[in-house]
Amino acid sequence: MSKQLPEIKSVSVIAKTRIFEVQSVDLRFSNGEERTYERLTPQRRSSVMVVPIYQVQLILVKEYAVGPERYELTFPKGIVDSGEDPALSANRELQEEIGFGAKTIEPLRSLYSGPSHMYGLMHLFVAQDLYPSQLEGDEPEPLDIIYYPLNKIDELLADPNFAETRNLSALFLLREYLNAKN
Amino acid sequence: MSKQLPEIKSVSVIAKTRIFEVQSVDLRFSNGEERTYERLTPQRRSSVMVVPIYQVQLILVKEYAVGPERYELTFPKGIVDSGEDPALSANRELQEEIGFGAKTIEPLRSLYSGPSHMYGLMHLFVAQDLYPSQLEGDEPEPLDIIYYPLNKIDELLADPNFAETRNLSALFLLREYLNAKN
Repeated sequence: MSKQLPEIKSVSVIAKTRIFEVQSVDLRFSNGEERTYERLTPQRRSSVMVVPIYQVQLILVKEYAVGPERYELTFPKGIVDSGEDPALSANRELQEEIGFGAKTIEPLRSLYSGPSHMYGLMHLFVAQDLYPSQLEGDEPEPLDIIYYPLNKIDELLADPNFAETRNLSALFLLREYLNAKN
Repeated sequence: MSKQLPEIKSVSVIAKTRIFEVQSVDLRFSNGEERTYERLTPQRRSSVMVVPIYQVQLILVKEYAVGPERYELTFPKGIVDSGEDPALSANRELQEEIGFGAKTIEPLRSLYSGPSHMYGLMHLFVAQDLYPSQLEGDEPEPLDIIYYPLNKIDELLADPNFAETRNLSALFLLREYLNAKN
């Protein structure tokens, strides 16, 4: 049995920059308590993350992240263009970021991440049957491409530096997928 | 071999609300490309998430998340108070959110989550040897408390609705921890 959702009494935009928009949300909980919460405006466009498999290896990329101010080992990812099918976005990002297209793209899970005051859906795919194909992206510099053996996934999962929850969730879900296939 | 980090030429606060602060960051990449990125100001205070085990069950909570506007199945969590040891924060949050203290608190991993334009560290713990103890928290309403059998973790991991990457990472890491113990 689910609790009755709080009533949203009003929502207003209180700050807006080029990429962030903050809303103030007045809520009344079912017990009568009232609170004003802030949140990032829920994203209208979803994103994709793709785990590419090439022969017996994973392909990862190293990309600069301005939050932690460092290069991070992650998977190709990006925003779904307006009206674009997420599987097509996944294939486009692959071609932009690692120079491969995929003949086989399968959905693994639709995930979201981060604190409860933000929301954006990220569609996770596994890409296989890769062929060379390069598309121009908007990255400021070419990404370093890392090949990682599939039979060492457990080591990467146990690495305390591999600590970003989208990447970690993606790799755990990939292991489940591979185990189910074998 | 790691690429040289981009030079951060300037950082300025461009928006500020009660809980959000947005910075604009001027960067020069090592290839000479210049970009202006935005980010949420990296968090000075870290957070904790705790997976409590009571006999042969996990304890989860249902908490309202204003981003997706729904109640979510998650684990007790909260912010580390200034100067507080994260393991103590974990034990405090347990007492505030589920009415149990823990005699045994072990670190599982320090995680972070979300897009590359934000950063906050979250310390993940497993809590065992629970005893009843209630502390007053700042929740607008009591949280629903859900007991979930340890031997059904695989089912929860496979549930497409269990899709928030911090929760998913926490549960996968707990399964690794339990498998290593047995």
